[in-house]
Amino acid sequence: MAQKITKRSESFSDWYNDIVMRAELADYAPVKGCMVIRPNGFALWENIQRVLNKMFKDTGHRNAYFPLFIPESFMKKEAEHVEGFAPHCAVVTHGGGKELEEALYVRPTSETVIWSMYSKWIQSYRDLPLLLNQWANVVRWELRPRLFLRTNEFLWQEGHTAHATAEEAEEETVKMLNVYRTFAEDYMAMPVICGRKTESEKFAGAVRTYCIEAMTQDRKAIQAGTSHNLGQNFAKAFDVTYQTADGKREYVYATSWGVSTRLIGALVMAHSDDQGLVLPPRLAPTQVVIVPIWKNLDERPKVLEYVARVRKAILEARTCSGVLGDLSIELYVDDREQYTPGWKFNEWELKGVPLRLEAGPKDLEKNSVVAVRRDTGKKEFIPLADVPTAIPARLEDIQKGLFERALAFRKANTFALDTYDEFQKVIVDGDGGFVSAHWCSDAECEKGIQDETKATIRCIPLDAQPESGQCIRCGKPSERRVVMAKGY
Amino acid sequence: MAQKITKRSESFSDWYNDIVMRAELADYAPVKGCMVIRPNGFALWENIQRVLNKMFKDTGHRNAYFPLFIPESFMKKEAEHVEGFAPHCAVVTHGGGKELEEALYVRPTSETVIWSMYSKWIQSYRDLPLLLNQWANVVRWELRPRLFLRTNEFLWQEGHTAHATAEEAEEETVKMLNVYRTFAEDYMAMPVICGRKTESEKFAGAVRTYCIEAMTQDRKAIQAGTSHNLGQNFAKAFDVTYQTADGKREYVYATSWGVSTRLIGALVMAHSDDQGLVLPPRLAPTQVVIVPIWKNLDERPKVLEYVARVRKAILEARTCSGVLGDLSIELYVDDREQYTPGWKFNEWELKGVPLRLEAGPKDLEKNSVVAVRRDTGKKEFIPLADVPTAIPARLEDIQKGLFERALAFRKANTFALDTYDEFQKVIVDGDGGFVSAHWCSDAECEKGIQDETKATIRCIPLDAQPESGQCIRCGKPSERRVVMAKGY
Repeated sequence: MAQKITKRSESFSDWYNDIVMRAELADYAPVKGCMVIRPNGFALWENIQRVLNKMFKDTGHRNAYFPLFIPESFMKKEAEHVEGFAPHCAVVTHGGGKELEEALYVRPTSETVIWSMYSKWIQSYRDLPLLLNQWANVVRWELRPRLFLRTNEFLWQEGHTAHATAEEAEEETVKMLNVYRTFAEDYMAMPVICGRKTESEKFAGAVRTYCIEAMTQDRKAIQAGTSHNLGQNFAKAFDVTYQTADGKREYVYATSWGVSTRLIGALVMAHSDDQGLVLPPRLAPTQVVIVPIWKNLDERPKVLEYVARVRKAILEARTCSGVLGDLSIELYVDDREQYTPGWKFNEWELKGVPLRLEAGPKDLEKNSVVAVRRDTGKKEFIPLADVPTAIPARLEDIQKGLFERALAFRKANTFALDTYDEFQKVIVDGDGGFVSAHWCSDAECEKGIQDETKATIRCIPLDAQPESGQCIRCGKPSERRVVMAKGY
Repeated sequence: MAQKITKRSESFSDWYNDIVMRAELADYAPVKGCMVIRPNGFALWENIQRVLNKMFKDTGHRNAYFPLFIPESFMKKEAEHVEGFAPHCAVVTHGGGKELEEALYVRPTSETVIWSMYSKWIQSYRDLPLLLNQWANVVRWELRPRLFLRTNEFLWQEGHTAHATAEEAEEETVKMLNVYRTFAEDYMAMPVICGRKTESEKFAGAVRTYCIEAMTQDRKAIQAGTSHNLGQNFAKAFDVTYQTADGKREYVYATSWGVSTRLIGALVMAHSDDQGLVLPPRLAPTQVVIVPIWKNLDERPKVLEYVARVRKAILEARTCSGVLGDLSIELYVDDREQYTPGWKFNEWELKGVPLRLEAGPKDLEKNSVVAVRRDTGKKEFIPLADVPTAIPARLEDIQKGLFERALAFRKANTFALDTYDEFQKVIVDGDGGFVSAHWCSDAECEKGIQDETKATIRCIPLDAQPESGQCIRCGKPSERRVVMAKGY
């Protein structure tokens, strides 16, 4: 606890690492570029999984598990795919003490192995749509690894669906993008822009890639989820056809979509502060911590008895209130004797518990508790009788407050610009941010922008209105604005 | 649906594969020795995970995630461990397009990488006990792969705990063995023998290995879970010491324990029959299927309306009954029009749904439903008014009935024998079974028994009473009986 957390204003990058390490979300593994997800981080991932699993199930998907290893020959069946992924793969050459006849790639993503199975399972229109998802580890060798953001191995989910028509596949691609948006905004309290990736940024093997992009506190963009319309590319590579209702054979249409443990990095960068982690109540493993306070040990029994009453009032509330949706309130009474109340306050601020309650002899006398919000630090007295309604209400306030604060921050740091000079002032010389600007749709110009400013075209927003303009860099005509920013 | 399932009496091995494939639990992957876990199989695994996760949490454990890759040098730090596992490993030699400086082993189990982290996290007695678990994929190259039972990659959980004293480590080892027993018996409805492995069968790197052993319907043993007391072996290999309360430095004591997707194979082999899968209600993804029946389409609306009433009665029951512990009743109304009732009956018998309800015009008139138990095929009429109590009660009966049937089967096929001649008659010439017999504790004799009969010593049961006798093979003195059987 003695080590200090670097301030965001000093170094955002060091601050991020300090938060991840000090809040014990993750640690560096002995294998270069890999991380260990510690219990505090994994509990967040489990909550992410639980919520998304329900959303996937509600949209008709089922979970399955496909193999870790992909034969080299499979990787090569889809030309763009192998070009995009093979250079970043880990390759197994020996197994069971012998050199393998064919090298095996550790999956960087599972389209190839899954579509080889779909060729076996899909025969008729009756087998469609096929809507599967898997939770798995994947491996992609990274040049500059960062905890949660880019690691050689990470955990993710990958949905892989098969459809009879191009329209259905497109509908699914957009539907799952919206699932991700709902999750990011309603659970992570993180506003996102839904958009389409440019040709050069799309998934290797996709027809179209959609994404959600969030803004970090250092005014960069972080891609938080992607959804791909794969057209018939993989169906053709793995010869997956189906018999239509009128007896013809057609290739199947595919989608894939995924989010990863990178979301935890995005969550940290969206809300946390110089005191530590700030977690939205709907994803926090513990929503409320109660710290009993006494000056001398005589007071201890009656304070603990009072704390037990407070605890009971909250536990009763959590079964009937439902204001936090499907998440119940998890609470922890920190009655450890070896630590002072002040130490505990710091500890739970560092760990990001949304609401801290304090109860001492004076609170007992007044029949109330002190409540301190993690997001604002605001302190208030809540009468015991109000606890069952006030606690869920405060948590809901925090959830909304985090979203609104992040949204206001994004608005304040998003600029509609029309000259390359202004653009460079914001992105290169200034504090950064999202720039809404015209672009000629030319990949050369896109590359030029990146080389000259380190900003990339994050996406073409789905809600972008048609608007005639001139490319911010080359002046050629443009039909709509895109979002540019430096990214993670 | 046209393919037949091989009868158990014809070939137990073919029957097993037929069940796994036809009930769509798993499929062969394109990579040799690997499998795909299909949604029906994965739903079972998710239920296994959910129940065990709660049991682990209730015993103070937290989940974490450690890297897939283990540096070759780590594998070599514990002498027995590397000897036992290295020959079965997959080895990554290339990453990111380059040959790696040090080869990486794909984890066959994670003691080494976890203890390298524990050396960083454990400093003081205050850091102990450290009680972590991870759910992960592991890879062990197999010579004779079989779906769920032995595959090159499988899913499992591995608990890894660190303790201050040898006594605490032993207590933890036995506690987790009992968690596995409770899970196997109360959820899988599969009676198990808890015992200790012989020296030659113990985990590579362990001081003592405990296991639970179940009996399959072909009278073999299947190891369904193991719990290892690792002593200070890994602490010494990775230099993990802690400062005691009085300032000394001591090595830490370790345990590890795991169950895998092999449990699904054991579950199939314990209960299923020639019609298909038989699932215990507490693990079945769907407990009840309702099949509406009509002869002509006029009857359809009123039958479906009646089925909706039955469904509602069950859904109300599931929120208040609690007879199935923490599992609610999942039900499915199979109102698909393209299939006949007879086809649906076969389908749900194949898929192992514990209870099938049928409702047609006659049932509506009588205000009752037909209920057919999957385990016994027993048919009965249940008045609609009794549905809320009768359905949970029947499911509970099925859960108990499966356990009792399996227990009776094991009892009928367990033999206390005293001569090698009798032993060979049962194991080599007969139908097999568990043999309770004396053994001299000599590894040579253990190997002799295996070479001559293919049976192994499954375990030294924890409840074995001291009893003087003579080794069934060599006649030397023995203190207690052990369990011998052919195994999976």
